[in-house]
Amino acid sequence: MNRDVPLKKYAKKMEHSYAMGAFPTIELLKHQPEHVLKVLLHPDMNSQAQMEIISGLCTQHGIPLERNGKAVEKLRDKENIFAVGVFEKYSNVLEPEKNHIVLVNPSDMGNMGTIIRTSIGFGIENLAIIEPGVDVFNPKVVRASMGSLFQLNFCYFKSFEEYKEQAGSRSLYPFMLKGAVPLQELQREKGETYSLIFGNEATGLPDSFADEGQSVVIRHTDHIDSLNLALATGIGIYEFTR
Amino acid sequence: MNRDVPLKKYAKKMEHSYAMGAFPTIELLKHQPEHVLKVLLHPDMNSQAQMEIISGLCTQHGIPLERNGKAVEKLRDKENIFAVGVFEKYSNVLEPEKNHIVLVNPSDMGNMGTIIRTSIGFGIENLAIIEPGVDVFNPKVVRASMGSLFQLNFCYFKSFEEYKEQAGSRSLYPFMLKGAVPLQELQREKGETYSLIFGNEATGLPDSFADEGQSVVIRHTDHIDSLNLALATGIGIYEFTR
Repeated sequence: MNRDVPLKKYAKKMEHSYAMGAFPTIELLKHQPEHVLKVLLHPDMNSQAQMEIISGLCTQHGIPLERNGKAVEKLRDKENIFAVGVFEKYSNVLEPEKNHIVLVNPSDMGNMGTIIRTSIGFGIENLAIIEPGVDVFNPKVVRASMGSLFQLNFCYFKSFEEYKEQAGSRSLYPFMLKGAVPLQELQREKGETYSLIFGNEATGLPDSFADEGQSVVIRHTDHIDSLNLALATGIGIYEFTR
Repeated sequence: MNRDVPLKKYAKKMEHSYAMGAFPTIELLKHQPEHVLKVLLHPDMNSQAQMEIISGLCTQHGIPLERNGKAVEKLRDKENIFAVGVFEKYSNVLEPEKNHIVLVNPSDMGNMGTIIRTSIGFGIENLAIIEPGVDVFNPKVVRASMGSLFQLNFCYFKSFEEYKEQAGSRSLYPFMLKGAVPLQELQREKGETYSLIFGNEATGLPDSFADEGQSVVIRHTDHIDSLNLALATGIGIYEFTR
């Protein structure tokens, strides 16, 4: 494990990334300690409690803890960030017997982080991303997820077909403005394994998804064009896990 | 009406603000035409359909339409913005017989816009903001709301006490991590008028709100600290308007 990676601003092609802020860094240390290269602390960090948690976890897992104000200032995009967890990117596989969220061509990093946080919050821990899609390791996604990314199984797929081949037997629920059944009225089999499928922020799912399983619509007034993607996903997850 | 306001970047103290982008500008023209000072178009705007809607609405309401690429470039924060609606700020009052959303000290502009969009989408058109709270006229809020702000009745209050005095008789539902009843199990009277109350992004509602009406919790796993505010609000609105 090469811990001496160049501490440059994040770019997608890099093999490491950053958890910015004490809370996401603690989540990183708790859930993915084997992938943490080091933790950087800024001398202005003043939460003694958070510092002790970070330092305890670093000691426990043999992770270097560095006082390096300069590097933190260079990497952070907000002035109130005093801790940065540096980690090597990792990959994992989806659990075929579990429920999944499938995002087809998601493009907004804030939405992606919020969706991950909500998904973990309601117990869905597997996320499929159909390419092209936003990079989950971008520090903006990590931060919007409040570090819950580190509890997620996620996997990128070249196409929805490729996803289906690997996903195992399950019910598919594409969420579409033209969905056949309103979410509020959906009848489901108890104990079924499912995938909730959502399209891109601007374009939604292609019409062809109407033939994939049971299409669903979240009914709203015609005073708005559509719901925000993170909101639609959150409401879908809430309803399916009630 | 002085239409010749200085076309400077938005600041809270200004008496006018901006709808950035064709879609929010069209919403502005449709719902608040009497407050529009002018519309600025960038010569690179290439959606003929949107241009015709904007120009039709401007003609109908006697609003000047200006080709002014320089001003658009100065005001916009994203390169894909080619239309800017310049409007004077306005105030309105809440409808006492309608359902309300109450945000206590909201601090994030993106969340605020998303909450407005969701609220309008599910038919709740009255929003109370307890100060200090984010400025709804900030162009970032307008944009995150996709222009649905222009369909909203909103009002700022110095305190929750002041809000209650003016809100009329209604049921209060503060959403709190320590809420007494899970949202999923809440029993309500049919046809009641209600207010859904949400706290600040970082701190939530003060404990004292447990005594205001029926406190509610959105149950989630302990794998996350809390839900994102816009998500919690959206799920609350969805459940109350099902």
